[in-house]
Amino acid sequence: MSGIHESSIVIDGLIIAKWERAVFEDMRKGGLTAANCTVSVWEGFQDTVANIADMKKLIRDNADLLTLVRSTDDIRESKHSNKTGIILGFQNAHAFEDNLGYIEAFWDMGVRVVQLCYNTQNLIGTGCYERDGGLSGFGREVINEMNRVGIMVDLSHVGGNTSMEAILESKKPVCYSHCLPSGLKEHPRNKSDEELKFIADHGGFIGVTMFPPFLKRGIEATVDDYVEAIDYVINIAGEDCVGFGTDFTQGYDKGFFDWITHDKGRHRRLTNFGTVLNPLGIRTIGETPNLTAAMEKAGWSESRIRKVLGDNWLRVFKDVWGS
Amino acid sequence: MSGIHESSIVIDGLIIAKWERAVFEDMRKGGLTAANCTVSVWEGFQDTVANIADMKKLIRDNADLLTLVRSTDDIRESKHSNKTGIILGFQNAHAFEDNLGYIEAFWDMGVRVVQLCYNTQNLIGTGCYERDGGLSGFGREVINEMNRVGIMVDLSHVGGNTSMEAILESKKPVCYSHCLPSGLKEHPRNKSDEELKFIADHGGFIGVTMFPPFLKRGIEATVDDYVEAIDYVINIAGEDCVGFGTDFTQGYDKGFFDWITHDKGRHRRLTNFGTVLNPLGIRTIGETPNLTAAMEKAGWSESRIRKVLGDNWLRVFKDVWGS
Repeated sequence: MSGIHESSIVIDGLIIAKWERAVFEDMRKGGLTAANCTVSVWEGFQDTVANIADMKKLIRDNADLLTLVRSTDDIRESKHSNKTGIILGFQNAHAFEDNLGYIEAFWDMGVRVVQLCYNTQNLIGTGCYERDGGLSGFGREVINEMNRVGIMVDLSHVGGNTSMEAILESKKPVCYSHCLPSGLKEHPRNKSDEELKFIADHGGFIGVTMFPPFLKRGIEATVDDYVEAIDYVINIAGEDCVGFGTDFTQGYDKGFFDWITHDKGRHRRLTNFGTVLNPLGIRTIGETPNLTAAMEKAGWSESRIRKVLGDNWLRVFKDVWGS
Repeated sequence: MSGIHESSIVIDGLIIAKWERAVFEDMRKGGLTAANCTVSVWEGFQDTVANIADMKKLIRDNADLLTLVRSTDDIRESKHSNKTGIILGFQNAHAFEDNLGYIEAFWDMGVRVVQLCYNTQNLIGTGCYERDGGLSGFGREVINEMNRVGIMVDLSHVGGNTSMEAILESKKPVCYSHCLPSGLKEHPRNKSDEELKFIADHGGFIGVTMFPPFLKRGIEATVDDYVEAIDYVINIAGEDCVGFGTDFTQGYDKGFFDWITHDKGRHRRLTNFGTVLNPLGIRTIGETPNLTAAMEKAGWSESRIRKVLGDNWLRVFKDVWGS
């Protein structure tokens, strides 16, 4: 592990792995200071509360490796104590159901990042896999309440119209926690140069992903392709509002991919990823130090590396969370 | 009560009264053979199941006045036995939540008419009180399943784009169960001549309402204004696909109107009806015979009166329900 990686705050902006000790051990091996860990996709309120309770039990049972993140101080503390901080995140605000009051309840439980929509329409707006009519009136109320309590708005899987209106509605920075540029590959999940510039120009944040179906070279890609994609985004957005968000799905089988690629987990199929094989060099969470090595190999300054590895995420989280 | 009213099948396409014996007695006084009775607006699945259970208990406890309608034969039987048939209906498909399987479950419970959206956006489409991005992919699946099991699609409070796409998607007749023409008064809830013609041209149905905020003369209106509005719709759609759907809110107080006029029953205000006072001559359900008298006074043929009072609803229900 390079000295830079070891001494940096390393924050993965999106992991949706199978939550079990093997993954947590790999997070430590990978030198992750913290990660935005998905605990809700298609679930409603009650099932999501149950998922959060499960995750908190896992954090207690693996307290030698993990700690729960409620503030950026907690992230600094996890660095200090050589643990990985678990940031509770949703990839869908479906769990808010029809009740704005649930938003603060989830904040109380520790949730700090919530994507507004996952692939299709919900009460708030529309995801990126169908025609997008934009942000609803309720969606505006949701964003205002997320701003108030301090939960970050994530737009990665959100449609273009809803995203643009959410960026304009939010009084706090919003993010694409895990996206790739469509300048490198056209895909419904990828963001155009204009979209990347728009979020950056409005104080927002971009976490760059490496999910193979959205990468230019797909499953032929290596960790160097990942750095190329991050570079592409930095060239548009600048180096101060860019981080990484791998979208690791480690430990999951076909059943999981069937669930996430069907509307609401059970209805029509929205997409088919085919083989999911992460880029050579960063196939597993434990290989995250190779990302830093690839940045160094690409000639990045130490300052840029530290920003993209985690300092940028840390700053924007503090802006949104308030502490 | 005129001979025509007494001998006709009289079907009110929409009542959302406070369900209690006083209202049921008034339904009998009004000579109602059947009515589409709202048992869900903002409620989710479980609360709606509870509402249905409450209504079924009311039907049992008031079995001298009421009977549950599961088929058009049941409506004919309620005429024969001098009872009012209760058709279970929703004004919002929110109760379907994210599960297509709930649709058949509700059919099993007796639900026969479901409005896709109520005023705002849901998983299916968008209501008439906000910008409408049209029918979602899930919305198409919902309509197909409603077609399959035999629940009528209602579009009264649905936005213009979602309504048009729903009309095209459905393989069975759909309806505006309770609407007024914007040709008589501009209002977000009223339907343009083009919209009325579009649903009629595609085999759909129009129930004309008399809800004062949407009437040309508001609370100054009389039952004759109601007949004028029905006439206006018949001039566009013909007399074979038009019925009436009063939208009686009998027995309810301010708390109810606050609930229905706020998004999800509790969030931002969508509209303010002001004073709700039904047209003179038909202020209460018990006065429904005055509607028939006003039709006669307007010079309608007996055949047209019988069609609009209930024969048209009966035919279209059979087309959709299958029995």
